[in-house]
Amino acid sequence: MGSTGDTTWQALAAAKREAILGSIPEKWRLDKIPTVDEQRNVTDAYIRQFLSPKESEITETDAVGIVEKTTSGAWSAVEVAEAFCHRASLSHQLVNCLHETFFDAALSDAKELEDWFAEHGKPKGPLHGLPVSLKDQFHVKGVDTTMGYVGWIDTFQGQKGDPRSKTFESEMVRELRNLGAVLYCKTAVPHTLMCGETVNNIIEYTWNPTNRHLSSGGSSGGEGALIALRGSPGGFGTDIGGSIRAPSSFNGLFGLRPSSGRLPYEGMANSMDGQNSVLSVVGPLATSAGGVKLLTKAILSAEPWLHDPLVAEIPWRADVEAQTRDRIASSQLRVGFHAHDGAITPHPPLQRALSLLRDIISRSGNQVLDWQPPASVSHPTVADLVAKTWIYDGGADVRKDFALSGEPWDPRILDIWQERPQADATSIAETNLALRKCRKEYLDYWNSTGADVFVTPCAPFTAARPGRYDYIGYTSFVNGLDLPSAVVPITTVDKNVDKFDSGFVPVSELDRKIQSDYDPEIYDGAPVSLQIVGRRYQEEKVLAIAEWLEAELKKASHTS
Amino acid sequence: MGSTGDTTWQALAAAKREAILGSIPEKWRLDKIPTVDEQRNVTDAYIRQFLSPKESEITETDAVGIVEKTTSGAWSAVEVAEAFCHRASLSHQLVNCLHETFFDAALSDAKELEDWFAEHGKPKGPLHGLPVSLKDQFHVKGVDTTMGYVGWIDTFQGQKGDPRSKTFESEMVRELRNLGAVLYCKTAVPHTLMCGETVNNIIEYTWNPTNRHLSSGGSSGGEGALIALRGSPGGFGTDIGGSIRAPSSFNGLFGLRPSSGRLPYEGMANSMDGQNSVLSVVGPLATSAGGVKLLTKAILSAEPWLHDPLVAEIPWRADVEAQTRDRIASSQLRVGFHAHDGAITPHPPLQRALSLLRDIISRSGNQVLDWQPPASVSHPTVADLVAKTWIYDGGADVRKDFALSGEPWDPRILDIWQERPQADATSIAETNLALRKCRKEYLDYWNSTGADVFVTPCAPFTAARPGRYDYIGYTSFVNGLDLPSAVVPITTVDKNVDKFDSGFVPVSELDRKIQSDYDPEIYDGAPVSLQIVGRRYQEEKVLAIAEWLEAELKKASHTS
Repeated sequence: MGSTGDTTWQALAAAKREAILGSIPEKWRLDKIPTVDEQRNVTDAYIRQFLSPKESEITETDAVGIVEKTTSGAWSAVEVAEAFCHRASLSHQLVNCLHETFFDAALSDAKELEDWFAEHGKPKGPLHGLPVSLKDQFHVKGVDTTMGYVGWIDTFQGQKGDPRSKTFESEMVRELRNLGAVLYCKTAVPHTLMCGETVNNIIEYTWNPTNRHLSSGGSSGGEGALIALRGSPGGFGTDIGGSIRAPSSFNGLFGLRPSSGRLPYEGMANSMDGQNSVLSVVGPLATSAGGVKLLTKAILSAEPWLHDPLVAEIPWRADVEAQTRDRIASSQLRVGFHAHDGAITPHPPLQRALSLLRDIISRSGNQVLDWQPPASVSHPTVADLVAKTWIYDGGADVRKDFALSGEPWDPRILDIWQERPQADATSIAETNLALRKCRKEYLDYWNSTGADVFVTPCAPFTAARPGRYDYIGYTSFVNGLDLPSAVVPITTVDKNVDKFDSGFVPVSELDRKIQSDYDPEIYDGAPVSLQIVGRRYQEEKVLAIAEWLEAELKKASHTS
Repeated sequence: MGSTGDTTWQALAAAKREAILGSIPEKWRLDKIPTVDEQRNVTDAYIRQFLSPKESEITETDAVGIVEKTTSGAWSAVEVAEAFCHRASLSHQLVNCLHETFFDAALSDAKELEDWFAEHGKPKGPLHGLPVSLKDQFHVKGVDTTMGYVGWIDTFQGQKGDPRSKTFESEMVRELRNLGAVLYCKTAVPHTLMCGETVNNIIEYTWNPTNRHLSSGGSSGGEGALIALRGSPGGFGTDIGGSIRAPSSFNGLFGLRPSSGRLPYEGMANSMDGQNSVLSVVGPLATSAGGVKLLTKAILSAEPWLHDPLVAEIPWRADVEAQTRDRIASSQLRVGFHAHDGAITPHPPLQRALSLLRDIISRSGNQVLDWQPPASVSHPTVADLVAKTWIYDGGADVRKDFALSGEPWDPRILDIWQERPQADATSIAETNLALRKCRKEYLDYWNSTGADVFVTPCAPFTAARPGRYDYIGYTSFVNGLDLPSAVVPITTVDKNVDKFDSGFVPVSELDRKIQSDYDPEIYDGAPVSLQIVGRRYQEEKVLAIAEWLEAELKKASHTS
């Protein structure tokens, strides 16, 4: 689909884009956004110049630290909310990461929390006063959910005049409010959601704030960029092929792609909703492993299975967490390492990160092993099956949403939306069987290894360069197998260490192409992250390991 | 499809039918099978005449009682196995309930268990020496899995020459063997599995042994009939629309339809495998609630989630069971009663059973309430959605299996297999969304009631009369909502009490027709059962309540 020649969608998109900017208070506007050559990295010191020391202190504290202060009364919910509203406003201006802001509602909610605290002498819940950002699939009263579609502006999921527009709230929103969270903004997504970069005709492109040559990832790219800038201490994204893990990884954040059925997706907007071979899942991203755990535990404490029929009745299992810590302490942990999926070679910084992590685990006395599933369940094989599920409907669902306004899709998004025949019931059943067979064989392989978890990159690159997200197999196999996966930031690209491998021998044209995308000059300073993949429903274990590795990495960086 | 005129399938079916009979040792053959007019009820005293007192004692002990004897060494595994092989042989001759026998393997396995016991001084597992029967979807080495298809004889699921034929074993078979169970027979199913009666061209019709005017139910009808005759203390069936609960209910047995993802279906044959909107589940039937619990707990103790990717990591939760008992003891239990689904009126004996159970619960001091979900999630509404999922492929899968031999399908099975268009991806997604919406609304209703469980019949009749299974909505809604449900036998039809309601005013032609099928003379003596439906994954709670009701009903029958 090309441009329609009609300017309507452009005008609507521009108006919405202006409205988002316009929702930022004058006092928080920036006069000038530096070019990437002037200022590649707009996080940390750069953004801090626009904040008061107290605002910086608050916003650079992780979610666990914030609730320690807000639940003890050391910080007021209002001052915390205001600091994050300010920093989120700056963040959006720097990298286009927001779809909606509702700062007045947030400040009013924060005030109510303060009143509650004053009245009851205790916090409302485990997230009392914690600002939480949400991907623009969550419905929050008072604002749009556009999911990046021009045709969804001022509608309910594209339906004009639907009474749920700006009134309905997703189940998890209800839970977050009850837990004491302060909601204040919704973050950018690529239209269709089916993309590892974040781009749409409303906010355009969401840049990686640590290195604005690069993508912030997708589809939860607005979350990734915002949290990297500390415009949020943590938030929720979704993942059907890597959409939590790519942004976590590209932005140097912790993130969790839970098993399907662990956290409540109920009442959220989605693409191809009702496709149930591989389900999209919702999960947290945060600046610390503890932050990810806090958000996960808090939602589970709300007993989401009572309100979302797809959630399994599995509360947070402190015993699994404790057993994992015991295994680590007693050097019993077994960690697999999968450095290459057989199809595409990870860029040099990722290879260095894998070695670094492997060394840390070995030195701790715990065990490492090579993770090499049989060819029949190689990660590319599983990824190919997953990709089939995304085009069951031949693009009908997303084309319908583009057609609402006549807007074209961005050439950088996964271009699988040209009309093609629908899959029929027999072929869908065959894909389901093939996926189940993979999951069974993978389980048998896992049992043979005795491993607790395994480690692998989230992509062959530390972050995608715009328009060059050419391979998603490093994340999407996890969705096909339905495993929990936690992203852990390991290091940053150092152009003096992470040289281009000129002796590299590609196994395919795509392998050659992707490796050639590595340019130490362009990538310098970018975060380098890995994912820790566990058995289905063992979120407690992968997060306990992520917390341990976070601490070990901190120790290692202090001694190096 | 009519008869092909070709006799091949008839010859193959007859040969297999003879082979099943022929597998029964001469010494256990019956000279004459009485007509239904000569002997309506062939259970209890009738079948006991062919058994020694010790054989009767063993086979009339429930699964819990048997393992008490076999794990303490009081009974040898071999004598128990032999008694059940004998009684199962008699059962098959009386009502056509078996597809496969493997008595020699069973006796040899039992001998090995005895040797194990002698060597280790302890049982091999919690099912040590317990005979367990299996629906003919389980693959067991040494014998066919025909699932009632003539074209599957001597194949692996219809594939000739497949090396898995007679060698491959289903995951649960492996687990049962490790737990110490003795496997000795596989039980009859209707071809296609999609039927509430059990009939196929091989074994023909499986009669209800308590009242041979009636159906044994389906699709796990062979299990139901065999266990009613005490030819098995317990076994496993499957349920995608009522196939565990109809046979349990029709035969006066306890049975559990677990939530999907609780027990391992891995490696079993199935119809329309890969349809994943409403999954078939596997679950136990037994002569006591304790027997059902024993089998469920035993399988969960084998950690099936390590070997079946669809099983959730939820072990047996003794705390949920104990909390349920506490709620009962402290009169906090709340039980809903759903006496009529709004579409079809249950026959008079079922109405009496509902009153009887309601009185028992009320008298215990616990609470009863009327269960009336909103019209948008009425049980017939959910049942209609479930029925859509069965014909996604327009009958392609089952027609393929009929075509292998050219056999026709029995006119008594659900006639939905005429060729029709396949559902496409968009319409399947719409059905998935409609089901999810129902499940959400039902959850909200449930939350509003504060109920622990609710009670409803498994069908409008206590058992179907042959060819008159005209309504499955009382079971299939549970599959659409994916709830655990335990069947509890309540009473038996008494023609002197359960009169035809001549003042009955039908709400539809089908309602009139089904009510007119009630004939006290024909139904006299038939078991009358109800199902206890719980929240998803609360198998522990529904079974604890089933056990309590079993005890209360015993007390009530002693005092009445």
